[in-house]
Amino acid sequence: MAGPIDFYFEFASPYGYLASTQIDRIAERFGREVRWHPVMLGAAFKQTGMRPLAQIPLKGPYMMHDLPRFARLLGVPLEAPPVLPDNSLHASRAMVWIDETMGPDAAKRLARAILHAHWAAGREIGRPELVADIAAGQGIDREELIAAVAEPAIKERLKERTQASIERGVFGSPFVIVDDEPFWGADRLPQVVTWLERGGW
Amino acid sequence: MAGPIDFYFEFASPYGYLASTQIDRIAERFGREVRWHPVMLGAAFKQTGMRPLAQIPLKGPYMMHDLPRFARLLGVPLEAPPVLPDNSLHASRAMVWIDETMGPDAAKRLARAILHAHWAAGREIGRPELVADIAAGQGIDREELIAAVAEPAIKERLKERTQASIERGVFGSPFVIVDDEPFWGADRLPQVVTWLERGGW
Repeated sequence: MAGPIDFYFEFASPYGYLASTQIDRIAERFGREVRWHPVMLGAAFKQTGMRPLAQIPLKGPYMMHDLPRFARLLGVPLEAPPVLPDNSLHASRAMVWIDETMGPDAAKRLARAILHAHWAAGREIGRPELVADIAAGQGIDREELIAAVAEPAIKERLKERTQASIERGVFGSPFVIVDDEPFWGADRLPQVVTWLERGGW
Repeated sequence: MAGPIDFYFEFASPYGYLASTQIDRIAERFGREVRWHPVMLGAAFKQTGMRPLAQIPLKGPYMMHDLPRFARLLGVPLEAPPVLPDNSLHASRAMVWIDETMGPDAAKRLARAILHAHWAAGREIGRPELVADIAAGQGIDREELIAAVAEPAIKERLKERTQASIERGVFGSPFVIVDDEPFWGADRLPQVVTWLERGGW
């Protein structure tokens, strides 16, 4: 079996959410695993000068039109949260914590639950309590999560993982790396499929 | 027959070139015309804070890897010019001049010739003489072109047309508007095809 696909996403990125609903299904068709990596895009933005799309003239309005259109095409629910972008720090730390204590499958389930709550149900994720409410639905203890996302070791791990993603060239969300080939953007998933079908081109 | 497709592109944009090799073939399949509009992206960049990709850390290196890969996928030639981005002002003015004196078909042929020279043969376009050399291959008089791109009326028309594109929401290259639906990016052409196939979704 060929190597795993790396899927980098930012919880505050709606295109990351859209891609998250597709990537495992795509990978399964080709017998590949997907490793999910939460990233804090702000760190990459410092290098690229990029800003959250919603705040940008012309691009922001385009995104607000494009997102529901893209979601309809994929057939996935979309209900944007009230404030864009929300603070994704606690969600990302929670995922790192679960990854390191319960493993990647549990972390992926938590990430899916958070992305769905945030982008398909419009729920906010900007405070530890809000992330804990969502995680509770996955059988994760609220108080343990709230303590974990304040732990220096977890904060440091997320920083390290974000830095490692930047060193691999990740600057946006979603960002897929398959066979060392980088693909940026939900709109590149068709190219990822073609890459997997042909084993490159 | 359904209305025409508007194709906005910047001569200095490699993704605009890639899309330019596809858009008319796509439109033909659905019996649509394509209107080509050169835009000076710098004007929109002032509003969005975007910069030419080649100059941006992380994004620039991604683009330099992605471009040849994308061109191979499309089966089109790509040889980037020595300096990115080149100055597209004279090419854009020349296209506007031909559009207004010889009509849109001649303007489209000239645009294709310039894009091909710049992106498939690596030729520079930053001075009127260089654009005139390319246009000469289309039977366009060199001296007339060099005079035309210095005319205040032509300069003004390009400004007006760029401003009109911004008012329609155009902020990047390529940018396709079909049935009033905006699609940004060469990687959105598959969605344009789907839109045309289904008559929307």
